Amino acid sequence: MTIDFKQDILAPVATDFAEMDQLINEGISSKVALVMSVSKHVVEAGGKRMRPIMCLLAAHACGETDLKRSQMLAAIIEMLHTATLVHDDVVDESGLRRGKPTANATWNNQTAVLVGDFLISRAFDLLVDLDNMTLLKDFSTGTCEIAEGEVLQLQAQHQPDTDENTYLSIIHGKTSRLFELATEGAAILAGTPQYREPLRRFAGHFGNAFQIIDDILDYTSDAETLGKNIGDDLMEGKPTLPLIAALKNTQGEQHDIIRRSISTGGTSELEQVIDIVHRSGALDYCRSRAQQETDLALQALQALPESPYRQALGNLANMALFRIQ
Amino acid sequence: MTIDFKQDILAPVATDFAEMDQLINEGISSKVALVMSVSKHVVEAGGKRMRPIMCLLAAHACGETDLKRSQMLAAIIEMLHTATLVHDDVVDESGLRRGKPTANATWNNQTAVLVGDFLISRAFDLLVDLDNMTLLKDFSTGTCEIAEGEVLQLQAQHQPDTDENTYLSIIHGKTSRLFELATEGAAILAGTPQYREPLRRFAGHFGNAFQIIDDILDYTSDAETLGKNIGDDLMEGKPTLPLIAALKNTQGEQHDIIRRSISTGGTSELEQVIDIVHRSGALDYCRSRAQQETDLALQALQALPESPYRQALGNLANMALFRIQ
Repeated sequence: MTIDFKQDILAPVATDFAEMDQLINEGISSKVALVMSVSKHVVEAGGKRMRPIMCLLAAHACGETDLKRSQMLAAIIEMLHTATLVHDDVVDESGLRRGKPTANATWNNQTAVLVGDFLISRAFDLLVDLDNMTLLKDFSTGTCEIAEGEVLQLQAQHQPDTDENTYLSIIHGKTSRLFELATEGAAILAGTPQYREPLRRFAGHFGNAFQIIDDILDYTSDAETLGKNIGDDLMEGKPTLPLIAALKNTQGEQHDIIRRSISTGGTSELEQVIDIVHRSGALDYCRSRAQQETDLALQALQALPESPYRQALGNLANMALFRIQ
Repeated sequence: MTIDFKQDILAPVATDFAEMDQLINEGISSKVALVMSVSKHVVEAGGKRMRPIMCLLAAHACGETDLKRSQMLAAIIEMLHTATLVHDDVVDESGLRRGKPTANATWNNQTAVLVGDFLISRAFDLLVDLDNMTLLKDFSTGTCEIAEGEVLQLQAQHQPDTDENTYLSIIHGKTSRLFELATEGAAILAGTPQYREPLRRFAGHFGNAFQIIDDILDYTSDAETLGKNIGDDLMEGKPTLPLIAALKNTQGEQHDIIRRSISTGGTSELEQVIDIVHRSGALDYCRSRAQQETDLALQALQALPESPYRQALGNLANMALFRIQ
């Protein structure tokens, strides 16, 4: 089965999606011209808007009737996501994201840091307007955990002793947690607390699968097809799952090469590392972990009533897997 | 009259101050070691803690009885302030703040940006626990305005046509707004809405005076006494009030020198600029504006009942003025 993003995932919430886009534009409006032009630039450079789409699908899957509110929540999610991307690009000194110049490259680091701060604040401001303390607490705790996950990733850089548990903590914070907020938040707003836990589990496992797949692609993709360069993670000495698995599966010289590459960073041994990652069965292990996480995500969805929205959430999880098939 | 900071300002809230310090330490605790050590570093590098002290004094001046809550609010204010300093240091590529190495210098830009994000999120998380929607709305709007003020400052950089109104918008956002949140927030928490407006006006005018004084010192202080270098603002092409006033008071070559210095930045004409700023009466004008703002701040305080706390707030406003006397 081939999944078509527009048809099989976006279609059920296409109307909400358009409304949400409008809410984002209103949300980033500011009396300071530079705030607006930078915010507009970074929001428009966004990708598929997977997170807000998940939020909208989750809201409908819970039977939400006040769609204005879930559209606003979806807009808030995308603004938080955009803020983290803007700060990530400063942090990584990136010049391009999805082929477009980043905010730090187009303006400068100062502007990017401060507009990122504005987007975080504005997202909270809109969240407060939704007037729901449970939602606010979920988001305020969640955004702390996201920042902690990102710092944990820095802390693990160049550390070859990083284990799979630490890796899972990192990707939970930096990736899965925002997916969780998107879906769990929708359940809170919809007034269906019984769906919070299953949606959180769905999103958490989906996020893990999504990030593991992304980390696999760093050792298999080519820049042209996915806008990524092979070896970006290795360059920065990031102990991602392919390397953690390779260390587990190897001994002697191969083991030493991987350890050294994590410790020093750089890509002087990239070819050997790629070879070891492929031959040692590390990538097979990563693929099976991504499959497991996807299965767990799909299982969690079963707690929700059958609907085209639940189906679309399942399609999204399956589509992510296709990137490594 | 000489005002002693400890005796005349801090003393009435010394006990709360110690409790607040403890709350900050608990607030920045994290399961990620790097988050904690960086947060601890930047919090400990803090200065006099003027903002939380104002918050505590305002709470008592409103007759607050639940001191645990105002101590928490004061801790939140200091955490927000610390977050902006951490990001400012990244933005300004500063290596030292108050003579101590900054977070970006001690660790790196990545860590500083992300720990700043963590501190903002944690501050909101603690704020949500105070369970007051009015307070949350005030803070979420206020933090947007703070970020907007900082971006407006960047937008005005190298713009010699910046007028005093724009300058006032900048300093309101980057400096006064957090003072306002500190005092207005205390009135909200104390359940004395009648004191919100006077405290907001006190803090707003105090903040303006404080920043105008700071900007004067950039053309009069020396690095040793105040930890500032003469000409830092000029270096960055910041059109602060001394330059805006000098442009108003001059014509011909002197006028051109000031305009050019703002446009290009740098300190190649620093000596002439200092000379023009002094001789043209620009600094006198700035001093009189700082005095005016202080007078307005003190007037606003009169709406609060007489108390040692109100007195201490007045002392704080007067003490700030001494830096230019």
